[in-house]
Amino acid sequence: MRVFCKLPRVSNSSKLKVAVVGASGYTGAELARLLANHPRAELTVATASGERAGQKLSALFPSLAGVCDVVCEEYSADKIAAECDFAFIALGHGKALDIGPELVSRGVKVCDLGADYRLRDTAEYKQWYKLDHTAAELLEQAIYGLPEYQREKIKGAQLVANPGCYVTTSVLALAPFMAAGAIEPHSIIIDAASGTSGAGRASFSLDFHFAEVHDNYKAYGVAGHRHTPEIEQGLNDAAGESVEKACVTFTPHLLPIARGILATSYASPSGALASDLTVENAHEILRAHYENEPFVRVLPIGQLPTIKNVVGSNFCDIGVAVDTRTKRLIVISALDNLIKGASGQAVQNMNLMNGFGEADGLQSAALFP
Amino acid sequence: MRVFCKLPRVSNSSKLKVAVVGASGYTGAELARLLANHPRAELTVATASGERAGQKLSALFPSLAGVCDVVCEEYSADKIAAECDFAFIALGHGKALDIGPELVSRGVKVCDLGADYRLRDTAEYKQWYKLDHTAAELLEQAIYGLPEYQREKIKGAQLVANPGCYVTTSVLALAPFMAAGAIEPHSIIIDAASGTSGAGRASFSLDFHFAEVHDNYKAYGVAGHRHTPEIEQGLNDAAGESVEKACVTFTPHLLPIARGILATSYASPSGALASDLTVENAHEILRAHYENEPFVRVLPIGQLPTIKNVVGSNFCDIGVAVDTRTKRLIVISALDNLIKGASGQAVQNMNLMNGFGEADGLQSAALFP
Amino acid sequence: MRVFCKLPRVSNSSKLKVAVVGASGYTGAELARLLANHPRAELTVATASGERAGQKLSALFPSLAGVCDVVCEEYSADKIAAECDFAFIALGHGKALDIGPELVSRGVKVCDLGADYRLRDTAEYKQWYKLDHTAAELLEQAIYGLPEYQREKIKGAQLVANPGCYVTTSVLALAPFMAAGAIEPHSIIIDAASGTSGAGRASFSLDFHFAEVHDNYKAYGVAGHRHTPEIEQGLNDAAGESVEKACVTFTPHLLPIARGILATSYASPSGALASDLTVENAHEILRAHYENEPFVRVLPIGQLPTIKNVVGSNFCDIGVAVDTRTKRLIVISALDNLIKGASGQAVQNMNLMNGFGEADGLQSAALFP
Amino acid sequence: MRVFCKLPRVSNSSKLKVAVVGASGYTGAELARLLANHPRAELTVATASGERAGQKLSALFPSLAGVCDVVCEEYSADKIAAECDFAFIALGHGKALDIGPELVSRGVKVCDLGADYRLRDTAEYKQWYKLDHTAAELLEQAIYGLPEYQREKIKGAQLVANPGCYVTTSVLALAPFMAAGAIEPHSIIIDAASGTSGAGRASFSLDFHFAEVHDNYKAYGVAGHRHTPEIEQGLNDAAGESVEKACVTFTPHLLPIARGILATSYASPSGALASDLTVENAHEILRAHYENEPFVRVLPIGQLPTIKNVVGSNFCDIGVAVDTRTKRLIVISALDNLIKGASGQAVQNMNLMNGFGEADGLQSAALFP
Repeated sequence: MRVFCKLPRVSNSSKLKVAVVGASGYTGAELARLLANHPRAELTVATASGERAGQKLSALFPSLAGVCDVVCEEYSADKIAAECDFAFIALGHGKALDIGPELVSRGVKVCDLGADYRLRDTAEYKQWYKLDHTAAELLEQAIYGLPEYQREKIKGAQLVANPGCYVTTSVLALAPFMAAGAIEPHSIIIDAASGTSGAGRASFSLDFHFAEVHDNYKAYGVAGHRHTPEIEQGLNDAAGESVEKACVTFTPHLLPIARGILATSYASPSGALASDLTVENAHEILRAHYENEPFVRVLPIGQLPTIKNVVGSNFCDIGVAVDTRTKRLIVISALDNLIKGASGQAVQNMNLMNGFGEADGLQSAALFP
Repeated sequence: MRVFCKLPRVSNSSKLKVAVVGASGYTGAELARLLANHPRAELTVATASGERAGQKLSALFPSLAGVCDVVCEEYSADKIAAECDFAFIALGHGKALDIGPELVSRGVKVCDLGADYRLRDTAEYKQWYKLDHTAAELLEQAIYGLPEYQREKIKGAQLVANPGCYVTTSVLALAPFMAAGAIEPHSIIIDAASGTSGAGRASFSLDFHFAEVHDNYKAYGVAGHRHTPEIEQGLNDAAGESVEKACVTFTPHLLPIARGILATSYASPSGALASDLTVENAHEILRAHYENEPFVRVLPIGQLPTIKNVVGSNFCDIGVAVDTRTKRLIVISALDNLIKGASGQAVQNMNLMNGFGEADGLQSAALFP
Repeated sequence: MRVFCKLPRVSNSSKLKVAVVGASGYTGAELARLLANHPRAELTVATASGERAGQKLSALFPSLAGVCDVVCEEYSADKIAAECDFAFIALGHGKALDIGPELVSRGVKVCDLGADYRLRDTAEYKQWYKLDHTAAELLEQAIYGLPEYQREKIKGAQLVANPGCYVTTSVLALAPFMAAGAIEPHSIIIDAASGTSGAGRASFSLDFHFAEVHDNYKAYGVAGHRHTPEIEQGLNDAAGESVEKACVTFTPHLLPIARGILATSYASPSGALASDLTVENAHEILRAHYENEPFVRVLPIGQLPTIKNVVGSNFCDIGVAVDTRTKRLIVISALDNLIKGASGQAVQNMNLMNGFGEADGLQSAALFP
Repeated sequence: MRVFCKLPRVSNSSKLKVAVVGASGYTGAELARLLANHPRAELTVATASGERAGQKLSALFPSLAGVCDVVCEEYSADKIAAECDFAFIALGHGKALDIGPELVSRGVKVCDLGADYRLRDTAEYKQWYKLDHTAAELLEQAIYGLPEYQREKIKGAQLVANPGCYVTTSVLALAPFMAAGAIEPHSIIIDAASGTSGAGRASFSLDFHFAEVHDNYKAYGVAGHRHTPEIEQGLNDAAGESVEKACVTFTPHLLPIARGILATSYASPSGALASDLTVENAHEILRAHYENEPFVRVLPIGQLPTIKNVVGSNFCDIGVAVDTRTKRLIVISALDNLIKGASGQAVQNMNLMNGFGEADGLQSAALFP
């Protein structure tokens, strides 16, 4: 087989050199997949530890053979700084507390896909992640990487904290209503379901054994999932200072699929929406909010998101309904947890941080069916 | 292959003769499967219409070959009355408005698996099912067949209305709290997910095409599903006259599995539970309520239901959690929509109506994994 | 919840006391599930090792709660001999080399679900399993537990070796043709596919991570799977001494389902079938061979087995087709790898060894859909 | 949401204008998805019939919203000829007998994804498809569109017949051995498995009801599938005139997944491979044959294809093993039935027919996991 880079394509010389720290996980492999088709960036360093270092990434992920055959190596901040302009950190929480400062101090722009720079409050970080935050200085510079709400700040950032998958799904659905003062901040319940890739490739405990997950469905992390404070922070940021702080009940469930998140969110209306609770009014809040966004699709009234319409793409689909009997707003949102919920949004952030087209390398439609 | 009935088993002569009206659907086939192992009842008449009449049931469902090889025939009230003591009606709503009176008037005891005798209020029936209720007289005699709440009445009933699958899942989870005055009737949100067998075998529209359902997940019937008023009726019955009527938001979702329902229900505490909202107190309400029930398993604190632990059985598993940050109760319940949610519960009702052991023929554990 | 044993059922006093050695795996749990509904046997000892000892079996498998709440204990031959009349060994290969003799010498009848007593040739055992066979004496007494071919010997056996799942599927399909001299022994190719439960619950390597198996399909153990010599032994036994020994190509594949095996077997006709290769002739060989078998269903001409029609049951379905263009016989067979392919067949053997009805406790139809 | 075409991309003015005749099926939608990211072609006309005409393609496939919002219209040869340079026909067999000549005679280059121009022998077409071939003249000009074997002819073709999905999978695996005279043409058995999207979106009979396909696996079209003669034609073309004609047994199975085909092919060695049957020799035949191909990946010895490593890509992965006990070659191949098995290969043909880079628009890696 010829590898594609032998085919006449865009010359690589002018492309952004990119490192993926932690390439052996699902989000790392997804970054490699997306970067392989990116017109202005290329993966040049992929790190992995232990016996994985020294192997081709395509030996770990044969799906990448002929597309990305870079050899994994042990992490070295100096080598990345010497060879790359940009780095993604795709590791579990805690790891970027060291790696983030090492790379940023060497002049590398960074997008961290983990949780270490998402919560602004270090006490909250310690409460939910059971770790001391040892990079508080860097945390102050970090920009929360939800482009729909922080686009301008992301453009100038040195370090972007890529949001959690459930957080992106939930905040994109509810923030327009929080911003409009249209829902009661204490009434919010988010009932969400995710495919198992969200747990990562290293999670091969019995909980992720095929025979246990297949044909199954269950709640987990009930009343204690770590994305809860991040959702609240995101909603409060959208609302600004004027309203009561959100306090949400968030219940994730595990779906017997590999990719995709769908969140069904409930809230009581307030303000103008309380006085005239119609699906038209609710829909207009969403539509107006996102009309210029490349990756948020507000569905027509009467149509609701499904996971299959977004998996494989960087889109977040949002639909809205109103329960007039009980006077509740129901907002449903869906995205691919590995793309808009992780690696795709990270590439979107990279695009913004480097002055590229925001949608560069991210224009695939969902793989349907 | 020898058919099992040739093996030395219990003599059939003393068994209850049972008809299944509408045997070509999933609930009909499930009744046939359950009855084949029932110690005190046997399927003697199976009806189907059109070209299915005249075929063996095992030609329509090859899984039943050697287990139930009865030949389907066109429905005839006279023939059923002549040959059977008991009939299940496993048809879409509306059909039992005629068939119910025909069979009951001929002295056949009936359990209807459809919706025609569930709602006591004929106006509500018309509102949600778009049909005039033409059997109001029989409706008055009908007993709602949730054995955990109507056991004694079921024992004496001539006609039992078997509850809806979502309704059984939801009411078993929440009724103990309604009965205890421990939740606010207007705060209830039920977010549920079901496998596709609930839609029936005849539903082969594009909505149920494998390639469209597989790997997918979506909400449907949002703010308008027909099980909503039945859930409210069930909760209000459990609560008695003293409290405010429940008004619930109910959102079903379609899971990419064949069998199983899981409902995650949210409510704000009231009464004693409001003043001391702990998981121990919430759990005790459930435990005490169901301690003598054969088919409701209240899980230990810290353990929550999964679909895979109930599919293939007549159990409903219930677990509870408390979100202390937002002061909400979260009750999770799961069952097999074709067994405890339909045909198994119907057999349980048949057992009660005929003085059999309540668990006769229903003692299988879930098929795990 | 009441446990079922409190319900008025058959008295336990006269039941066969049964041990399951290795109850924490999928076949162990399936034995517990089947025994819970057996009219003449009851599980009284379940063994598990390490931290699992001391726990209820229903803590390891919550699906069994209320159905089988026996407490697991460390294996002790003396205790089993004191309390039980019969034992199943449900462990990986090699373990029964010690346990088999320990139990048999204490007078306990044994059915071993592993591979240790299947191959009569200890050299072949060493070649394929890389272990010395240290119980050759017991091996000589062991009866191969395929009831359709060894029924009378099983009835008198002290130790039965339960066949492998792929072996049962393949031998039941092809042995009638071998016995009739109707296929060329060197022409046989068996292309089979199995659900992942066959790999066992302890196999939680990356190979069985949900996200890697789901939506996937692949061959494994190509030209080297350990069931190959056992298939050949079984076919040769059926053929008797007169024909050339079979030498089969066997290729298993992994299906993205939990339960079920389907084998598509190819062979060139010989003898009478070669001179008149019609589907009618081929079908008649199967039909005549199995007409009195309770658990083999030979499907009508034109109908072929599917996995879903057998999962949950102890049936093996077999269908046949003929490729007249290429002059090949195609035999397709399907069963539930945990039931007729393991624990169900083991119970069938237990029934025979103890003079029970052969189908006792095994009469469930497949759980369809 | 902004639609992507508003983003600064390549100007559309110089792109090839492309029609998709039959855009409402799965292969039609897949063409639209692939064309949306093609650097040198754009979908300008999409046809659909009945009530689908007049709707946006993204109303039929919401996954395409914002990516391809073209409005479907009734088929008109004149309109396509006026507006397009190239057309794909993505309809069931028989339809292109009329449409092919209509478009070609109007100067439109055509790639037909159906079966009408694949078999060169019109008698064979009639035998397998039960239709008279009414476009025999055009058939003579048609080029069989398997680029790995017909690349130069495709470049100059006016009409290309895109191969069947099973055919591409099988012929790519076996043709190198046929060409090398390394396998016996009469020994070939192809055992293949496909996801359900191959049946098309319109196939919503009970056979494709989710609850019937899920957790299931079965053979279909045994000894009679229409891809059989096309496979034989492809293998014989590769072998040239010197060898005996192939006569294959082909058995397709239905997998409970949406996309992907894996074929396990068996053959007896001949020629040089017969005298020295090693996996190294077999592998070298494949490696040498495909070393310059962009979309065929010959896997290293010891590694075998899986469906998940190709789904979402235009790759066909091929691996080989040898059963030394039975002296058989086992070749395993996998591809995405909607991409390399249909729409992707069609785009590859379009690229060749129009002088584009062969891999243009087709460089995505598989969507793993």
